[in-house]
Amino acid sequence: MSCLNSINSPEDLKKLSPEQLPALAGEIRQTLIDRITITGGHMGSNLGMVEATIALHYVFDSPKDKFVFDVSHQCYTHKLLTGRKDGFVDPAHFYDYSGYTNPQESEHDHFLVGHTATSVSLATGLAKARDLKGETGNVIAIIGDGSMSGGEAFEGLNNAAMLNSNIIILFNDNEMSISPNQGGMYQNFARLRRSKGMAECNFFKSFGFDYFYVEDGNDVEQLLPVLRQIKDTPRPTVVHIHTQKGKGLAWAEADREAGHYAMPSGFDVSAFAGMESYDSITTELLLRKMEKDPTVITITPATATITGLTAEFRQKAGNQFVDVGIAEEHAVAFASGLAKNGAKPVLMITSSFLQRAYDQVIQDLALNGNPATILVYVNGLSPADATHCGVFDIPMLGNIPGLVCLAPAFKEEYISMLDWAVEQTETPVIIRVPSAVISSSTPVLTDFTKYQTVQQGGGIAILGLGSFFPLAQETGKLLEEKTRIQPTIINPRIFSALDKETLEQLKASHSIVITLEDGVRSGGFGEKIAAFYGASNMKVLSFGGDKEFSDRVPLETQYQKYHLTPLQIVSAIECCMKGSE
Amino acid sequence: MSCLNSINSPEDLKKLSPEQLPALAGEIRQTLIDRITITGGHMGSNLGMVEATIALHYVFDSPKDKFVFDVSHQCYTHKLLTGRKDGFVDPAHFYDYSGYTNPQESEHDHFLVGHTATSVSLATGLAKARDLKGETGNVIAIIGDGSMSGGEAFEGLNNAAMLNSNIIILFNDNEMSISPNQGGMYQNFARLRRSKGMAECNFFKSFGFDYFYVEDGNDVEQLLPVLRQIKDTPRPTVVHIHTQKGKGLAWAEADREAGHYAMPSGFDVSAFAGMESYDSITTELLLRKMEKDPTVITITPATATITGLTAEFRQKAGNQFVDVGIAEEHAVAFASGLAKNGAKPVLMITSSFLQRAYDQVIQDLALNGNPATILVYVNGLSPADATHCGVFDIPMLGNIPGLVCLAPAFKEEYISMLDWAVEQTETPVIIRVPSAVISSSTPVLTDFTKYQTVQQGGGIAILGLGSFFPLAQETGKLLEEKTRIQPTIINPRIFSALDKETLEQLKASHSIVITLEDGVRSGGFGEKIAAFYGASNMKVLSFGGDKEFSDRVPLETQYQKYHLTPLQIVSAIECCMKGSE
Repeated sequence: MSCLNSINSPEDLKKLSPEQLPALAGEIRQTLIDRITITGGHMGSNLGMVEATIALHYVFDSPKDKFVFDVSHQCYTHKLLTGRKDGFVDPAHFYDYSGYTNPQESEHDHFLVGHTATSVSLATGLAKARDLKGETGNVIAIIGDGSMSGGEAFEGLNNAAMLNSNIIILFNDNEMSISPNQGGMYQNFARLRRSKGMAECNFFKSFGFDYFYVEDGNDVEQLLPVLRQIKDTPRPTVVHIHTQKGKGLAWAEADREAGHYAMPSGFDVSAFAGMESYDSITTELLLRKMEKDPTVITITPATATITGLTAEFRQKAGNQFVDVGIAEEHAVAFASGLAKNGAKPVLMITSSFLQRAYDQVIQDLALNGNPATILVYVNGLSPADATHCGVFDIPMLGNIPGLVCLAPAFKEEYISMLDWAVEQTETPVIIRVPSAVISSSTPVLTDFTKYQTVQQGGGIAILGLGSFFPLAQETGKLLEEKTRIQPTIINPRIFSALDKETLEQLKASHSIVITLEDGVRSGGFGEKIAAFYGASNMKVLSFGGDKEFSDRVPLETQYQKYHLTPLQIVSAIECCMKGSE
Repeated sequence: MSCLNSINSPEDLKKLSPEQLPALAGEIRQTLIDRITITGGHMGSNLGMVEATIALHYVFDSPKDKFVFDVSHQCYTHKLLTGRKDGFVDPAHFYDYSGYTNPQESEHDHFLVGHTATSVSLATGLAKARDLKGETGNVIAIIGDGSMSGGEAFEGLNNAAMLNSNIIILFNDNEMSISPNQGGMYQNFARLRRSKGMAECNFFKSFGFDYFYVEDGNDVEQLLPVLRQIKDTPRPTVVHIHTQKGKGLAWAEADREAGHYAMPSGFDVSAFAGMESYDSITTELLLRKMEKDPTVITITPATATITGLTAEFRQKAGNQFVDVGIAEEHAVAFASGLAKNGAKPVLMITSSFLQRAYDQVIQDLALNGNPATILVYVNGLSPADATHCGVFDIPMLGNIPGLVCLAPAFKEEYISMLDWAVEQTETPVIIRVPSAVISSSTPVLTDFTKYQTVQQGGGIAILGLGSFFPLAQETGKLLEEKTRIQPTIINPRIFSALDKETLEQLKASHSIVITLEDGVRSGGFGEKIAAFYGASNMKVLSFGGDKEFSDRVPLETQYQKYHLTPLQIVSAIECCMKGSE
């Protein structure tokens, strides 16, 4: 008989006997495997946390006791136990819930998170508020060993240890980040595992935490007594549990990096085989450079696979590849130091994770003018979770002095930019890596501070930045069809400075300028163009995303909403022309 | 006979016998005291590092061996020993050099820094580049215990420990941040001091560093043998030295917080006594609130004094005040957690340090919509060091969705905004705290999403944001005098959203809009206004700082350069009017 059938809330769970919990864990594990295999999702991290999540909900009383999941790559069992089982057992509801915790889904979720290393600080805030209000209850941060390398987690630990009150850090040690862990602290975790938590030199004790070790974190029988013992502790406490990433799924256990995230069924990787991608274009160019020049070095903050740095690449690159772990601040400062001392660093990072190193980009890099290259991946409007959308990097980077920020439209242009960025010794360079590879026969203009006029027309000029250049071309074509006006089409390529000469020249024979950018308009490229023409008669219409968080909204819906289809843009132009008549 | 006279470079220093070094230290200490007493500067931190800096330059060979000073509050002796003695002994040159390391001053300085916790990561980059180039030499990061609480330092340590090569962390433990240290790790440092470095539970060893302890870091005789022993070590190594902050200056030794930074001589604190400041306005309001409501809580990231949180305030606030240490990321996430659980947190932070928590503001706070209040101090154009200028916060914050960002112009408005921000439960609120307190008899419009029209005129509208509102008034007055046009004067108050209704209404009877903002124009307030009017006939002239780093440039010089005087603005308006005729 199925235990899972009867479980729709933590209260239901508590009706089971401890002896029934392993069977329940088995059912949940199989449910997760079946569902993730179809939908895709964080497989390995979730499979490792099944027993611990059951034990937490069995011993503690959520939502009075508050669980804060770090990055929430491991929250599926929690979701399943807190009223969202349909999202895992009923295919009709598989896509109802996000892959991350979300307070809008349940009172058992306290934060919408998707970036790492935040749980301890957030939990410390919950706990301190509890104390100020004179309330009781446990606050439990659940954080994996991979997340532990982020500076925010460390700042949180340092402060949580001083709380002088109840806060519990459940440290889920599966010996892996997405990739293998990087950093000195992991030697200590290994030592703690080897000594079954008894080693005197203990990272957590050095902060002053009470410390408990659970050797098999996938064994409910080992977990329950420890959790019962620390429930309602008046002291900052760490429970270090050792779990198996990918537990119960042979291939995910065997290849824990690949098993971290499963693609949806029907997703045919072979369909992409041989297809050109910016991943392969980039790694091939960099490998050629690294062979010739031992000072070329690639850096990833624990997201090698997302940026195309395959196991094969890493093996070939050898000591010219560094995974700094989840540590974006260090990654940028490290790159600056490398460049200062004559090396040629290339940091590959997603747009939303680079947000974590904003001050390092300003102070450690731009202010110092060191010639590091940063490739920004997963940028622009996307159907991703709100936590992973890359729509803010144009305002984030384009308004910092001392950076050259480039947005290539074509493969040939990207290669030329990357080649130049790595070899020059004057300035930090940011390159926004497009997603779709498009070739162009137009020769690449190698002075990247200049806009490139791809079609000379009159009356209307359309500036399509980076991955939105094709949209400029499509819009221009439609405009010509509808109005017989042949517009000027410009590939601006740079978003850290205006090409004032080109913009000035447009005044002579143009009355409307259209800007298109793949990101929020607010603080971005188009507003600068509008301000440039502010005192002139030029009309400027800027298109891009609204300033808002977009959570798993299909791209086509966003394009419609933000008036980013050629038809909508042409309509706006026609409307503006009428207004100007 | 003076040793100091003969010293103009590290080579000169090496000619002295070890026995002469204490006398040299005495001379340098007196020189620093004399100079800082006149010029102002970081007194306590520099006095504590005299002997260690001498010992470093005596044993190592800069610039081949590279010293990276964290935040560089402690670099004066280094500057004095590396060709910049005139800046300390000759009053004519007292202002030639900045208070921080700066590669433009000397080949012995490798980075321009002024934010904390960066040295280990930057040094790791230098060291890795050295290895890639097949060179030799030592890389030494010099970091204080205060800086150690920053997440970037931790990320750096975690990675430095894995370098498998030479990197030396000189850990200067003076038992103080600017304020007393906060955090669990400091218990471990105390334990290490008590055990003379012998305690088994050792924060640094937990990362895998080789570890050495020097009990009296102000004793050259104790320092030299340890530094000689570790020179050219092939291993990541920590040297923990225990020093006396403010050493040799009685008042700075006695009050190490006050002694951290000395004001210039002639700076008469009593002249400010009784003068109203936003510090006292804020703390008085918050203390009143805290008395009535135990959930109101103030947070500082180790910069209590800068934001007016005096010892008296802290004592009165009790457990409703938290110093999280130098840990801006934690500070923001902590505030979000507090707000989520029903407390009313007010984080007080300088503009340039908030840059360190950009992603936490986006993800941990704004995306979650928790009603925390952040007061941004030291914002706007200033004659400060480039590292401390607060000119980027309007673009940094104004382009993030989910925040209400306010810029009050008047005392009454500020009080009303702060009161509202703390009590409301809907949204995170940012308030840009002005520097000069100006009162206004105009009633405060309490719907802060609306611009306030303070003078209704025609033809030209001047929008002066926050601390630049008085400039709007002055400019308006001058314009009226010169042209007899009475402009509309608007106090916009909010920079996270446009008051489209007011802006739309201006179209009826205005042809020129002027925007004034105290920060870089790029990505800021004015560009949004220009974009709003992009398709209309309205002319928009935006004034603010250029997108550049401004290093100790007098404010008047900046105002002239950026055309921010009323005369320059009126000239630009006249020029625009002629163009429009």
